[in-house]
Amino acid sequence: MITQQIQLHSRPEGLPTPNNFQLTEQNLPSIQTGEFLVKNLWMSVDPYMRGRMMDRKSYIPPFQIGEVLEGGAIGEVIESQHPDFPVGSKVTSMLGWRSHFISQGQEITRLPDVDIDPSHFLGVLGMPGMTAWTGLNHIAALQKGETLFVSAAAGAVGSVACQIGKLMGARVIASVGSDEKAEHLRALGIDEVINYKTCGDLNTALATAAPEGIDVYFENVGAEHLSAALNNMKDHGRIAVCGMIAQYNDTIPTPGPSNLAQIIAKKLKIEGFIVFEHWAHYPEFTSLMGQWLASGNIEAEQTIYHGLEQAPNAFLGLFEGKNKGKMLVKLSD
Amino acid sequence: MITQQIQLHSRPEGLPTPNNFQLTEQNLPSIQTGEFLVKNLWMSVDPYMRGRMMDRKSYIPPFQIGEVLEGGAIGEVIESQHPDFPVGSKVTSMLGWRSHFISQGQEITRLPDVDIDPSHFLGVLGMPGMTAWTGLNHIAALQKGETLFVSAAAGAVGSVACQIGKLMGARVIASVGSDEKAEHLRALGIDEVINYKTCGDLNTALATAAPEGIDVYFENVGAEHLSAALNNMKDHGRIAVCGMIAQYNDTIPTPGPSNLAQIIAKKLKIEGFIVFEHWAHYPEFTSLMGQWLASGNIEAEQTIYHGLEQAPNAFLGLFEGKNKGKMLVKLSD
Repeated sequence: MITQQIQLHSRPEGLPTPNNFQLTEQNLPSIQTGEFLVKNLWMSVDPYMRGRMMDRKSYIPPFQIGEVLEGGAIGEVIESQHPDFPVGSKVTSMLGWRSHFISQGQEITRLPDVDIDPSHFLGVLGMPGMTAWTGLNHIAALQKGETLFVSAAAGAVGSVACQIGKLMGARVIASVGSDEKAEHLRALGIDEVINYKTCGDLNTALATAAPEGIDVYFENVGAEHLSAALNNMKDHGRIAVCGMIAQYNDTIPTPGPSNLAQIIAKKLKIEGFIVFEHWAHYPEFTSLMGQWLASGNIEAEQTIYHGLEQAPNAFLGLFEGKNKGKMLVKLSD
Repeated sequence: MITQQIQLHSRPEGLPTPNNFQLTEQNLPSIQTGEFLVKNLWMSVDPYMRGRMMDRKSYIPPFQIGEVLEGGAIGEVIESQHPDFPVGSKVTSMLGWRSHFISQGQEITRLPDVDIDPSHFLGVLGMPGMTAWTGLNHIAALQKGETLFVSAAAGAVGSVACQIGKLMGARVIASVGSDEKAEHLRALGIDEVINYKTCGDLNTALATAAPEGIDVYFENVGAEHLSAALNNMKDHGRIAVCGMIAQYNDTIPTPGPSNLAQIIAKKLKIEGFIVFEHWAHYPEFTSLMGQWLASGNIEAEQTIYHGLEQAPNAFLGLFEGKNKGKMLVKLSD
């Protein structure tokens, strides 16, 4: 059995390029007692992976040059000598960026036997959806009737945050980077959608969209989005800081907003979070989200690239705003 | 009766100058039934007043050009037709920047009859001391054994925050702007004191002083202090944002730190606060602080200018680091 896999070939400087990645092949041995062979069906690309490509201390260790990349994946067991993972089981793992792998079951989870496309466990029912829900519930404690602002609102996390915000009874203002994305969010019932690339001054656009001020900002972008949000927050507003994608490819550090003194004047609370620390709440989340999906209250949009060799392009596309909803790579039918 | 008073003559651009202030005189009428006449003994100058000199919406209304400035003051009733404020009463008010005023008692508080110099009610027992205690207790929830970093640590708020930090059982690291201030804080038992003007790279100096990382940062300065703190915070660290004095005189907005993504990586909590919103806790604070002062556990340093005409210079001195502890103007014996 040969597995195809994508290694980190070199560390990106600034925006990653295809040359930072290398597709290789490797022989897999036969499985032994207690092992099973997984064929990956889907893999996830996510903005946070950019951080792991840098050689620095962070909340997860950096990728190493010459090693196979990692990331969320959904696969199917195709050979097994492990009683808990029979052939045909669908499993989720962090062993994406490869076509096959052998496991003894550590850090592999069997998907529940539900009537939902397994790819959603990489998106709306997985880490991105759980991130949106955690930020709104456990970090910002969004309340009914409040005004929520979400940046990168057409992305895997943002699009779910917008929709959960509506389900929680908030007025939701979204920022996106294309008219097509804006139109789609409006069709989902999002109250105000700003195309930050064409709106002129974002600060003014946000003030117009939220004349009453913002109670909660779900921060995915940083830079000018953070600056505009600070200027438009209400007193005692809360900012859940999930990501700052505008800065991930900086080669020269970009200065932060010049209006941080708003934190004092408005008595703001700003809190960063990493979803993995909140994983104890995952069963509660899946139960809720399962109901929302079943009742059609949440739309789970996906942008799909096909074939492992397309994984680098899918990843690069995240930084060019090419995805609507969850960016996925389909590895096999 | 003539009162001397200082008006805002023009709005400062950048660092205020003496020309922004004007000393004038005004006749006061005779007091009527229900009124009393106060002779101010002490007045406070505080960095937050710089914000009120700008014409912008904030948590308190801006000063108006041609009107008498306001600020904390301690005075003595010298004539009275009000039963609750007999002659000889010591009172605290927001009617500083003037030698005398007539009141009907609104927003005037009589000082308790305790054996403490009344000037301390503008400092360690007043708004600055209460600010330090509120930030550490109610905002950052500093715990015994944690590492606390305080900037502007020789100032009215900072010097109290350092000392309360020690009393709460924290390891305390302080940043100041002169060797003389550093020496004084060391004599008070502060664990590590950095002179940010001579230490070279503040980030490195802080890393050396807090190799274990910082649990709580009491933020008075902004700019490079915030950047260095972000780089040296522990995971789940808390930042109580009290002030950003480095920015108060900016004519061109100064960019914020480029390392705000540390908020995510370290899952930091940052919270701005205004002490007046926490005033319900003032009795608890005065009881605690009264004990600390009586037992010699807190030293209440003061820098004193003499005479109302020196009030602008005292205020300007705040931005030149001329004060050790509370900056006060003594108006009368």
